Amino acid sequence: MSVTTRQVRLAQRPQGFPDESTWTVVDAALPEPQEGQFTVRVDHLSLDPAMRGWLNDVRSYIPPVAIGEVMRAQGTGVVTASRHPEYAEGDTVVGTFGVTEHAVSDGRGVSRIDTSLAPAPTWLGALGMPGMTAWFGLLDVGRLTEGETVVVSGAAGAVGSVVGQLAKARGARVIGIAGGAEKCAWLREIGFDDAIDYKADNPLKRLRELAPGGVDVFFDNVGGAILDAGLANLRRGARVVICGAISSYNAESLPEGPRRYMSLLVFRATMTGFVVFDHEDRYPEAVAGIGELIRSGRLVARETVLDGGVEAFPDALLGLFRGVNTGKLVLAVH
Amino acid sequence: MSVTTRQVRLAQRPQGFPDESTWTVVDAALPEPQEGQFTVRVDHLSLDPAMRGWLNDVRSYIPPVAIGEVMRAQGTGVVTASRHPEYAEGDTVVGTFGVTEHAVSDGRGVSRIDTSLAPAPTWLGALGMPGMTAWFGLLDVGRLTEGETVVVSGAAGAVGSVVGQLAKARGARVIGIAGGAEKCAWLREIGFDDAIDYKADNPLKRLRELAPGGVDVFFDNVGGAILDAGLANLRRGARVVICGAISSYNAESLPEGPRRYMSLLVFRATMTGFVVFDHEDRYPEAVAGIGELIRSGRLVARETVLDGGVEAFPDALLGLFRGVNTGKLVLAVH
Repeated sequence: MSVTTRQVRLAQRPQGFPDESTWTVVDAALPEPQEGQFTVRVDHLSLDPAMRGWLNDVRSYIPPVAIGEVMRAQGTGVVTASRHPEYAEGDTVVGTFGVTEHAVSDGRGVSRIDTSLAPAPTWLGALGMPGMTAWFGLLDVGRLTEGETVVVSGAAGAVGSVVGQLAKARGARVIGIAGGAEKCAWLREIGFDDAIDYKADNPLKRLRELAPGGVDVFFDNVGGAILDAGLANLRRGARVVICGAISSYNAESLPEGPRRYMSLLVFRATMTGFVVFDHEDRYPEAVAGIGELIRSGRLVARETVLDGGVEAFPDALLGLFRGVNTGKLVLAVH
Repeated sequence: MSVTTRQVRLAQRPQGFPDESTWTVVDAALPEPQEGQFTVRVDHLSLDPAMRGWLNDVRSYIPPVAIGEVMRAQGTGVVTASRHPEYAEGDTVVGTFGVTEHAVSDGRGVSRIDTSLAPAPTWLGALGMPGMTAWFGLLDVGRLTEGETVVVSGAAGAVGSVVGQLAKARGARVIGIAGGAEKCAWLREIGFDDAIDYKADNPLKRLRELAPGGVDVFFDNVGGAILDAGLANLRRGARVVICGAISSYNAESLPEGPRRYMSLLVFRATMTGFVVFDHEDRYPEAVAGIGELIRSGRLVARETVLDGGVEAFPDALLGLFRGVNTGKLVLAVH
């Protein structure tokens, strides 16, 4: 019995923000699974700022999505039929299935998930790629030690909210930078020591007030003036972790760089970029660590789940750049 | 018998390039050395890009020069009278005596120098602060290993020319970026594998041609578009060493930052600032290492020595920003 799957494919590369002309929504017949394959009904799709970068035809840490290809996306779902030795019908899984209602997979990059620990959407957030990103970015790249001061931008987002809570659990003082009073209130609720609303306050001056001794780890998801606010307020020997730059992903030309990068010299500091995929062999360690914090109630995993199915993907992606989400932004497919 | 010393003092803080109004030249009476002090006849003054930063009233790695104070400068000279147990009349010394013909010193930050190894001006260059900067910046901060590709900007300058030669001696492939055909020819002469004349060539494109596999260590003395050229051409795991930013020291407002800083993420690279003073306890190691390379003819120490005495200091300093020097820029005082 043939299954039809609705999919969002890349129609053309956007200049600036993606719009209607960027995507085509098509209904395709799902192939039967061959030996070593299985089919998945995709239930939840991950929306990631990094997706914008995958649309550009430039050399980066991952090849761009090709024109005509199903948009790359992580998702969770349930195995509907299997000719794969390690997956059985009914298994709940996470993987890079793309923006599609159903997918065929050979199991590469797929994991079974434990929905008794947390519901499936959390496996796209705190227990998924964003959680892994927070863990390795803060602990390995940021080399956080107890008693230090951590500042994270995009703090109410999927990565930032885990970074802050992880840092608290490790004995740090944590300040979050986020957009809007509501997000800042939530950050305080989940244990951040302070929160700066960059829409209402000057983050550079506010950070100087809140961390007069300087910042040890600045974990940046935003770039632009927010990164400069961090650079202006480092402590000697600080580590600046470059995780993302959501403020510039839709820029039509190369944006301004961090004007205060010479702070790296003044404060003998380091700015390091990283890509979570490099830590893949150690994901189990991070899942165990974050899972334990969730289980013991010391880490709140939050998702903003949008409805509308795969055809809502283009709007949902734009929502990410408007900051509609608190915690991880997820699109419900079924 | 009283000695008069001509001195250059900071009259007011410059906006942009220093000019006549920045300095006053005064003749002062040199105090007699007290117990624990000695007097020095300053023969050579060091001209350093970093001096421009010392004129700004901002928080940095060193306090600014105060208004009315003798301009801070390293110099070499000969002890003319001593009541200090460790220095005797006739000793040749290096220290931060300031822009002055004669100075009184208590010995702090002063070292005796061995002019049989190299003439005094070299102790302001390859065997002085610039040499120390090259050594610790390349080996400790840049963590150079054999067979890697090193690119250095400001390559024909005091620091850059030592960085390149040190890297060659350590088995690296070395490309220098400098201004003008003459400087580039000199770089090839002293063993650089390639040289890019940024006044004639696009350094970003030229680097791509010369180092298609990417750069392991980018040692930056310049900032601006030159730093971006490096960032665009890194190899995975690269180290960007931030030593200086001569292109912006006279800017009247905060200059643009490195637009391509997100290359740090793409290439999993690190950008680290450093200040040579932090390595003071290990200067003897660097002096020994560079001294041995000079002795064995594997490192050419070059200085451009200007005449004119201390009153020529203001012009000499500007010359540094015009790039009049090949190798270390030194002002002869006597």
